[in-house]
Amino acid sequence: MARLAVATRAFSASASAGAGAGGVAMVQGASRGIGLEFVRQLLRRSDQGRVVATCRAPGSAAELQKLKEEHAPGRLTVLPIDVTDEGTIEAAAASIGETHGSLDLLINSTGILSIPNVIQPETTLSKVQKSSLLLAYEVNAVGPILVIKHMWPLLKAGGRSETGRGFSLVANMSARVSSIGDNGLGGWHAYRASKTALNQLTKTVSVEFGRKDNIACILLHPGTVDTDLSRPFQKNVPKDKLFTREFSVQKLLSIIDNVKKSDNGKFFAWDGEEIPW
Amino acid sequence: MARLAVATRAFSASASAGAGAGGVAMVQGASRGIGLEFVRQLLRRSDQGRVVATCRAPGSAAELQKLKEEHAPGRLTVLPIDVTDEGTIEAAAASIGETHGSLDLLINSTGILSIPNVIQPETTLSKVQKSSLLLAYEVNAVGPILVIKHMWPLLKAGGRSETGRGFSLVANMSARVSSIGDNGLGGWHAYRASKTALNQLTKTVSVEFGRKDNIACILLHPGTVDTDLSRPFQKNVPKDKLFTREFSVQKLLSIIDNVKKSDNGKFFAWDGEEIPW
Repeated sequence: MARLAVATRAFSASASAGAGAGGVAMVQGASRGIGLEFVRQLLRRSDQGRVVATCRAPGSAAELQKLKEEHAPGRLTVLPIDVTDEGTIEAAAASIGETHGSLDLLINSTGILSIPNVIQPETTLSKVQKSSLLLAYEVNAVGPILVIKHMWPLLKAGGRSETGRGFSLVANMSARVSSIGDNGLGGWHAYRASKTALNQLTKTVSVEFGRKDNIACILLHPGTVDTDLSRPFQKNVPKDKLFTREFSVQKLLSIIDNVKKSDNGKFFAWDGEEIPW
Repeated sequence: MARLAVATRAFSASASAGAGAGGVAMVQGASRGIGLEFVRQLLRRSDQGRVVATCRAPGSAAELQKLKEEHAPGRLTVLPIDVTDEGTIEAAAASIGETHGSLDLLINSTGILSIPNVIQPETTLSKVQKSSLLLAYEVNAVGPILVIKHMWPLLKAGGRSETGRGFSLVANMSARVSSIGDNGLGGWHAYRASKTALNQLTKTVSVEFGRKDNIACILLHPGTVDTDLSRPFQKNVPKDKLFTREFSVQKLLSIIDNVKKSDNGKFFAWDGEEIPW
């Protein structure tokens, strides 16, 4: 498999704006975990870039509100999106259109794996439930694609040279367990299938963008990161394979910075390695 | 890509029972198209094999009822399954358990691509609808997996030597457009993603079966076949690439007959060629 050439890049508050550091970045699913860390690092790396963070309930997203206070007015906008409610996506698109007029980077970071009494990763076929399959699909696959659908006009208007990239980028958070070729363990039916479908939907969208638009789409695997999502499943993860959010997002932003238009439709792990479908 | 060694085999009413010709075969989604043709050919190739055909409304499945009359009593059983209604799957499993006690072959043949005013293959991202994504997923991915879940005890009890195969086989009808690696055209978001998810679910199930059971699962691409499903999309298909149902099912049964336990989890085209994920 190919590996993306990822330059080692220092991330600090004073770092000069790298590719994607200027312009308008949207992080969908930003109240915690990897999404929140994306917002934090995007705000820290330049004093020009503007960030739109979305989550289901901005009012109770304490960390996002704190970040908003810490940064200059207008640098961080927090908007409500529940990916299972398409109306909230449309409303966010209208609001971003009014405030910023375009998007240069869209990071889809929502994902569900387990919710007590609602959805649990399946250890065997006999535990597979229709409700879990449909819920995981709706949140992990349908949601991100509807977000891209409604942000499409803003992405077309973005990608300007001030971002250092020259095209708009959509980065969807997938996971290595979505790889069919790499599936040697089984289990986790609902989560796996939803993320595999996200891979196919992203590839499908990338074909259309590659034909007509100045937009590229990529898929990212963050590694196993110490977040609420992975916490119930960390016990078998070797210490050195459990990443901090800071480390993982630093690596992922490195990929986002270095991606080329010709990487459109590809699936990269945190270390730049391409993951087989 | 590897190619399955597919023996040229004559199919006729007098052909001796090949692998899978005896025993009990279930065809899910059998009222028309490829499913119906599977039932026809399975019944014709031996006078011992028993077939369970399922469809949403057996009462109005005229072709199946006709086949039932043409064959000896007990050779064809027609049962109702609506894959979107799990209760009908459970009821069918109970009924097959009582009548036959086991299953040696399960062919999942349902699939939706277009229904006027309900679901249409998308030509662009802007036409992607949440309702279509969810419906295609429910019928094309969730349905077959729930059928396997409930038939699992019967498949465990099957696979006996009288079938000539020595293990039970699940064959899920997929489609080449589900391949992410092969997706160069884009479009058909809902259908593609649902069948890609089916590929991942089948692979996931195959890992568990490979570990514990005398069952293998494969995925099949029938080619573009002249059925109700493909009819609205045939105009760009070269004449020699549009197969009759007879030809396609003959080829697919050849694969089903020649498959080995070590092919568990693989995805084959009608000509035995392995399709990349």
